[in-house]
Amino acid sequence: MERVVTFGEIMMRLSPPGVQKLIQAENLELTYGGGEANVAVSLANYGLDSVFVTRLPKNPPGQGALNHLRRFGVNTQYIDRGGNRLGLYFLEKGASQRPSSVSYDRTNSAISEAGKGDFPWQVILSDARWFHFTGITPALSDRAAEATLEACKIARNMGATISCDLNYRKKLWSREKAGEVMGSLMPYVDVVIANEEDAEQVFGIKAGDTDVEKAELDEEGYMEVARRLKENFDFRYVAITLRESYSASDNGWSGLLYDGTTYYHSRRYTIHVVDRVGGGDAFAAGLIYGLLHEWNPQDTIEFAAAASCLKHTIPGDLNMASVEEVQNLAKGADSGRVQR
Amino acid sequence: MERVVTFGEIMMRLSPPGVQKLIQAENLELTYGGGEANVAVSLANYGLDSVFVTRLPKNPPGQGALNHLRRFGVNTQYIDRGGNRLGLYFLEKGASQRPSSVSYDRTNSAISEAGKGDFPWQVILSDARWFHFTGITPALSDRAAEATLEACKIARNMGATISCDLNYRKKLWSREKAGEVMGSLMPYVDVVIANEEDAEQVFGIKAGDTDVEKAELDEEGYMEVARRLKENFDFRYVAITLRESYSASDNGWSGLLYDGTTYYHSRRYTIHVVDRVGGGDAFAAGLIYGLLHEWNPQDTIEFAAAASCLKHTIPGDLNMASVEEVQNLAKGADSGRVQR
Amino acid sequence: MERVVTFGEIMMRLSPPGVQKLIQAENLELTYGGGEANVAVSLANYGLDSVFVTRLPKNPPGQGALNHLRRFGVNTQYIDRGGNRLGLYFLEKGASQRPSSVSYDRTNSAISEAGKGDFPWQVILSDARWFHFTGITPALSDRAAEATLEACKIARNMGATISCDLNYRKKLWSREKAGEVMGSLMPYVDVVIANEEDAEQVFGIKAGDTDVEKAELDEEGYMEVARRLKENFDFRYVAITLRESYSASDNGWSGLLYDGTTYYHSRRYTIHVVDRVGGGDAFAAGLIYGLLHEWNPQDTIEFAAAASCLKHTIPGDLNMASVEEVQNLAKGADSGRVQR
Amino acid sequence: MERVVTFGEIMMRLSPPGVQKLIQAENLELTYGGGEANVAVSLANYGLDSVFVTRLPKNPPGQGALNHLRRFGVNTQYIDRGGNRLGLYFLEKGASQRPSSVSYDRTNSAISEAGKGDFPWQVILSDARWFHFTGITPALSDRAAEATLEACKIARNMGATISCDLNYRKKLWSREKAGEVMGSLMPYVDVVIANEEDAEQVFGIKAGDTDVEKAELDEEGYMEVARRLKENFDFRYVAITLRESYSASDNGWSGLLYDGTTYYHSRRYTIHVVDRVGGGDAFAAGLIYGLLHEWNPQDTIEFAAAASCLKHTIPGDLNMASVEEVQNLAKGADSGRVQR
Amino acid sequence: MERVVTFGEIMMRLSPPGVQKLIQAENLELTYGGGEANVAVSLANYGLDSVFVTRLPKNPPGQGALNHLRRFGVNTQYIDRGGNRLGLYFLEKGASQRPSSVSYDRTNSAISEAGKGDFPWQVILSDARWFHFTGITPALSDRAAEATLEACKIARNMGATISCDLNYRKKLWSREKAGEVMGSLMPYVDVVIANEEDAEQVFGIKAGDTDVEKAELDEEGYMEVARRLKENFDFRYVAITLRESYSASDNGWSGLLYDGTTYYHSRRYTIHVVDRVGGGDAFAAGLIYGLLHEWNPQDTIEFAAAASCLKHTIPGDLNMASVEEVQNLAKGADSGRVQR
Amino acid sequence: MERVVTFGEIMMRLSPPGVQKLIQAENLELTYGGGEANVAVSLANYGLDSVFVTRLPKNPPGQGALNHLRRFGVNTQYIDRGGNRLGLYFLEKGASQRPSSVSYDRTNSAISEAGKGDFPWQVILSDARWFHFTGITPALSDRAAEATLEACKIARNMGATISCDLNYRKKLWSREKAGEVMGSLMPYVDVVIANEEDAEQVFGIKAGDTDVEKAELDEEGYMEVARRLKENFDFRYVAITLRESYSASDNGWSGLLYDGTTYYHSRRYTIHVVDRVGGGDAFAAGLIYGLLHEWNPQDTIEFAAAASCLKHTIPGDLNMASVEEVQNLAKGADSGRVQR
Repeated sequence: MERVVTFGEIMMRLSPPGVQKLIQAENLELTYGGGEANVAVSLANYGLDSVFVTRLPKNPPGQGALNHLRRFGVNTQYIDRGGNRLGLYFLEKGASQRPSSVSYDRTNSAISEAGKGDFPWQVILSDARWFHFTGITPALSDRAAEATLEACKIARNMGATISCDLNYRKKLWSREKAGEVMGSLMPYVDVVIANEEDAEQVFGIKAGDTDVEKAELDEEGYMEVARRLKENFDFRYVAITLRESYSASDNGWSGLLYDGTTYYHSRRYTIHVVDRVGGGDAFAAGLIYGLLHEWNPQDTIEFAAAASCLKHTIPGDLNMASVEEVQNLAKGADSGRVQR
Repeated sequence: MERVVTFGEIMMRLSPPGVQKLIQAENLELTYGGGEANVAVSLANYGLDSVFVTRLPKNPPGQGALNHLRRFGVNTQYIDRGGNRLGLYFLEKGASQRPSSVSYDRTNSAISEAGKGDFPWQVILSDARWFHFTGITPALSDRAAEATLEACKIARNMGATISCDLNYRKKLWSREKAGEVMGSLMPYVDVVIANEEDAEQVFGIKAGDTDVEKAELDEEGYMEVARRLKENFDFRYVAITLRESYSASDNGWSGLLYDGTTYYHSRRYTIHVVDRVGGGDAFAAGLIYGLLHEWNPQDTIEFAAAASCLKHTIPGDLNMASVEEVQNLAKGADSGRVQR
Repeated sequence: MERVVTFGEIMMRLSPPGVQKLIQAENLELTYGGGEANVAVSLANYGLDSVFVTRLPKNPPGQGALNHLRRFGVNTQYIDRGGNRLGLYFLEKGASQRPSSVSYDRTNSAISEAGKGDFPWQVILSDARWFHFTGITPALSDRAAEATLEACKIARNMGATISCDLNYRKKLWSREKAGEVMGSLMPYVDVVIANEEDAEQVFGIKAGDTDVEKAELDEEGYMEVARRLKENFDFRYVAITLRESYSASDNGWSGLLYDGTTYYHSRRYTIHVVDRVGGGDAFAAGLIYGLLHEWNPQDTIEFAAAASCLKHTIPGDLNMASVEEVQNLAKGADSGRVQR
Repeated sequence: MERVVTFGEIMMRLSPPGVQKLIQAENLELTYGGGEANVAVSLANYGLDSVFVTRLPKNPPGQGALNHLRRFGVNTQYIDRGGNRLGLYFLEKGASQRPSSVSYDRTNSAISEAGKGDFPWQVILSDARWFHFTGITPALSDRAAEATLEACKIARNMGATISCDLNYRKKLWSREKAGEVMGSLMPYVDVVIANEEDAEQVFGIKAGDTDVEKAELDEEGYMEVARRLKENFDFRYVAITLRESYSASDNGWSGLLYDGTTYYHSRRYTIHVVDRVGGGDAFAAGLIYGLLHEWNPQDTIEFAAAASCLKHTIPGDLNMASVEEVQNLAKGADSGRVQR
Repeated sequence: MERVVTFGEIMMRLSPPGVQKLIQAENLELTYGGGEANVAVSLANYGLDSVFVTRLPKNPPGQGALNHLRRFGVNTQYIDRGGNRLGLYFLEKGASQRPSSVSYDRTNSAISEAGKGDFPWQVILSDARWFHFTGITPALSDRAAEATLEACKIARNMGATISCDLNYRKKLWSREKAGEVMGSLMPYVDVVIANEEDAEQVFGIKAGDTDVEKAELDEEGYMEVARRLKENFDFRYVAITLRESYSASDNGWSGLLYDGTTYYHSRRYTIHVVDRVGGGDAFAAGLIYGLLHEWNPQDTIEFAAAASCLKHTIPGDLNMASVEEVQNLAKGADSGRVQR
Repeated sequence: MERVVTFGEIMMRLSPPGVQKLIQAENLELTYGGGEANVAVSLANYGLDSVFVTRLPKNPPGQGALNHLRRFGVNTQYIDRGGNRLGLYFLEKGASQRPSSVSYDRTNSAISEAGKGDFPWQVILSDARWFHFTGITPALSDRAAEATLEACKIARNMGATISCDLNYRKKLWSREKAGEVMGSLMPYVDVVIANEEDAEQVFGIKAGDTDVEKAELDEEGYMEVARRLKENFDFRYVAITLRESYSASDNGWSGLLYDGTTYYHSRRYTIHVVDRVGGGDAFAAGLIYGLLHEWNPQDTIEFAAAASCLKHTIPGDLNMASVEEVQNLAKGADSGRVQR
């Protein structure tokens, strides 16, 4: 099995049932998720040796997160146990004109206190084909940023392909800090993934007059963003997710892959959203899977977009769809007819 | 804090989970609601001293209703405790072509037996800026109608603005009785609110050839209704809610405010309905909030319509949205993008 | 009360809450259903003496299925108790581009082991006006096929009208076997019901170049199918359900009835799907109800289509709508406005 | 199947999950029950033609009650549909020193408005072996008392054995009224059932210095009560249930049967109480079953006590145990070992 | 209404359903609680003007805690809004030999960052009859300890009685630190409450050879503890709770009150534990209620012990029992018979 | 990590919530379990490389079982995927005098069709220290019995210790068949485990006049059983679990270990039973853990008995307790005091 390694934070996710608000709730649905962990689960699900690296506290929430990863097939042997708390977030799922809302409570989480030298990267990455992280990991703390840089350097030395989903989170750091830190990591990155606002927030690369609060997309603008990202950092691939938010319940969704020569557009899906969280991570995992197997760019972006589309229809952070299910959708089986 | 007083019935609301029918259900979701109580909660939520006046029995259901009001910040100090039972209603939420269905079991409720002289209106209304009731309260019983009239008279003497949502309920009284009783209350009313059929049912004022079972609205007709209501009763404002029922799951929704001179139309929302009950009450509360703060009519009707739109996305009778959330939507932030 | 008899399998249905996948679930919603049982419940609900014939094991699942049928008014007096297990199926409800998925675990169920001579058909059918089965019953086993043939022969002798819903299930038998067995039963059938693929799968009668994975329907093609079915087997009526699967969440739905002379088309419904399973059975029951009462073909097909539309909005296999509710929708009351 | 007829009220039962209080609850468990209905279910479960007679409103709660009875095998063909509401009660289950608490909301229920001549007793009772009612039915209203008297008279003429569970409810009527009305019914009763306080409340027959709030029983006193009941009304059998309430969670439980000659004592059970409601009804049903089949008094009282013991271990009002399960316990299999 | 003021932390409480462990759970029951908040709810429930002072963050968890307090009648007008997070704890309820387990995640909670001068104590306490805190509040942080001291000084000046429940929490501070800080607060305290280990942990006052892991109590030892506490700090009253932990499911429970002259022992309850958390707080509230109303010591300790006994039978942190319910139990009504 | 291998069947376990009966349930709690799988989870939980060998179908139930094992740390790499169905069982949890009841639906499960040569035992067992199976595996089918024999032979060759829990299941095979097949496996077994009836059912070795339906144990008799088992088959150790079934809710529980010389008795626990299923498996795992680490027999039997005691307090088949938690209880910490 090909090994892929991801590094980051997994949090406890607590959300009221259905589309209740927290102040209405008498119980909360409990699951676990986080950008890189979600990618790891998708890839485990696709049959890879998917290693997730993090630090988890030795308490019931920490054990719960570990068990969740194991349940879905992730290789957890390099997870460090220690620290004081598991980060958590409250998710209020929205509907129609009411947006979903995330309240983070992740300060001082175990992984945010991990730093350079805390993980045996030489061992972890020795057989790895791919290393993936997102812009959230270095945003957790300076120590976490150093650990990320360390991992990138060793991954490069080991010959692993490195991908990064920019994933800007304004509650974690400023645009300036993000630009600086992420800028120092980009030289190691082969494949970058950005959504409709990341490139602008982190690197000031704006897609024309795109307004992310508008449903309509300026597709030309995004091609421009991809081109400029490629120019600035000489990535092998730039992938961009294109979301059209008609409402909290209905989204348009597609992907764009640029290899410096050609822009590959995926099919565009109109999705009744079940659970929006983790949609980008499912895209990243699909992209990694395709590129790892050296599929052609068009097949790769179709697979990534279809994987992400399916994730939007599944409750929780995780994409549970198999390679076969994703491929069926990518080939056009979107009628939703009952499978008996 | 500005005091606003509402007067009416709060009931126990029992509904099967999801869109089950009662005969399928093995448990029922329990909440509490009623027209004027719902308005009171919205206004408490907006930061006002929101007083709800009613009578509640001294038993667990009565206490449950009281606690529910307190939980959401309503001033419950003038609620009288007594009577034999809390009214209740069963709600089967519909979907698509299947309508939601309400079965009332409210006869002989504690508040229906309350009458003139049972509440210290002089005290309750002494500092009040506003008094609100709906056509449901006087429909409960002759005694309740007398109490409503008493409250209106004292409110007027005290200088409070008086609003009334016509809210015709055919299971509670006939059109004739409604016309007569409501007719006697209208002279005290400054702001009247009507939906697509109230004016016709209560006062025989019909909007051209509007058919409420049709999805399409005759907007001209509703402007005519507003004009004739204004003419007949010399209201300061007439507000009309305009619902387009495409199905139990999808509604169009907007509001119209008429000041005798100009017709102010709100934006029109296409809503995936989560919970339709209380939508009109959220509109009334938004309207009261705007007029109380002497916002201009356009801002007021936009706020009322946006508040009501958000209510449709929240389970239960109550609007939990804050002033800020309503204003964001009123200003156009309807993309439903995740708030992190 | 007019007696209608249906014969087949009822299974335990286990499905994760909401649209979860089984591997996410920690509890399963439990109900019971099966083609002919679902028809029986609809007809009991319409006020007929609706007899369901099957064999159920003497254990808690078997008793649970029996109680479920009784609860909804089905006459269960001819149900045989014996055999080793109740068949069951796992249903993962889909959403948007993700299809619903059914996993059967019905091999060796009690009814699949029942055969000719196991039921007192002379008694059961003595006063029956109608006998209904689907293509699932003879597919269960050779013995079940023989029992079906026996029932058909006696029903015909007794003067009952016989209807059959082709309901091809590829997991139960091959197209060749289906064609052979169903071909031997068709001479007894007066009214046949087929969906968009049954006729092709079972009898090789294809609707032009219809592609069932496509949302768009070739209506001409279906009329051709109806005509050829009528030609081949000399049925009194051929009814066809026309589903347009835009996604797992949204379907178009209508019906077609052909009496050898005229094609009667029902209204076409665009449905937000709550639960798709049992939709065809609700159609069959509506059709039987209309034909049994000798309604004209147009009223009959409208009733059948409206019944089926309502079923799509109700959780579980069963249609809980009353004759009055179905007729209201058939007459056009599809606005979904709250019924108070 | 031998026919047994019971007559009375079935209510909707709403209780918070577990041992919550109502003011904590956000959902309520929904089931249905009532003294005579509970007896009817037990007897249906034992295989008799168990007829329950009542009036139920034509609304979802009324239909829900009807379906509940059918589900558990009760013959519902003589249930009248009409009236305005289904009675209901809220049950807060207690624990340890905190008692369970029942809040009735049953005034003006459909059955309380039914009276003499409203049911075709000649037909209902024509083949009946037994007629059973409790002291609750005549307590509902004067009209209900007249209907009960009418039923008793016809049952006697038809040759049915008549049993009555005194079941005094102080919220429904005074001791004086109860004594008078019940006194007029007793001449028709063959078998009377009383618990530790009924005889005193209704007929002023007190068991020495028994204090029902005490856990310890004065067994001598209860034998005296049985003897005096027999003397006063010349019953064929007097049965008494003996509950020792150590706490809401633990009860002692046994039964006593007196035939005018001998006192038959059942085994005494120490029960961890799951659900106390309906325990007396399960006893009554067991008693009826044994006497109907002319078992000897000792076997009969053992069966009744064991049935009631099992009911205390089952959630809801209803005893789901089979004749075989009850007999196993009556014979001493009380170790609770897993049955595989 | 007499005003009582309590000061401390309220946390979100998250617990798996039933007696699951966290690693099994897919959803968590959500409620809110904390020592002083629990006391405030009890006292509000008894009809006092019960003021709870704390700081709550302006986010959904903070609002949820506020609403919870309001729901149960607490005066929340002096709660400060600010800070970054609401403290929370995970509770795994135990059973039999398996202990309940609490995992705190309360570091950096909003209230732990509040300090001297942050609350308008002069206003809050101006009409207060009583001020209550526990040893948890000063343990949160040095700043919180200073705020507690400030409140004590002003309360004393204002003439309020001051009570303190020692409530030692070893995860929050060392015994040395606790002894020092608590020692500085004791001079202001009139009524002290301690459980079986607090006095030893905080002040090194040990009850003979009591072993808290043993079920048997050394009652003599506890009287000695009370005497020495009184001696050391000259309290007006020393109250001690005496728990006998037979298992997680069964506890013995009683209280002891010492006024310097006489030892008053309450009845001793053997409790089937439903929810153990908050039992001590219910005791404290009962004690305050009795002393505030100048009941005699025996009645007071009986009320406190009965209140606490009832709390053990109610899910969640809060005692929902009314004065009347507590008094009934204190007077001996412990049979748990159904109240109808 | 030391490797331990277990071989057998894991089933889907479906049980109504709480202590409902299946015919009351509208949803079922879903988990997975089976004798050898439960042992594997315990041992994984104790930190061993715990390998479970079985065959699981490639469908959602099969994947669910696999994920469940992974979640709790079991090494699943040698699980074969294939076959048609996952076995399942319905569990109705009992209470007080009502026994729990298990309905198996496991015929034709994937593992029952596996046979000799289907698993690479040479590889699986190459580093294994221990091999464990129960009497259920060979009872599944003749093929499964052959596979068990094959595994035993290879395990012995490889030098692994072999343990067997007799676990007689009368629904799977006759006493005669069991005696014959188990007799052929015993020569390979080093450590045998039997409960109160296994030795008699399988080998006709009866403990004096022990009656398993009685609560009282004949301890002498069990020592005799151990001695005769040792004599007949020359085991290294014989372990016997001693259950006293007072009721479904309360059990006495202890263990006995015999090494041919001395009888080691564990402490005896009186348990409030939360979930009885898997209690024996937790005992077996504790025994294996102690013997594997060459603890002395007394410590070993105490650990096994304490582990099993804790399992009885945890919902589901699995023991979630850690080595530390088990040791705490084994050392006497059974007071159930809250751990904070």
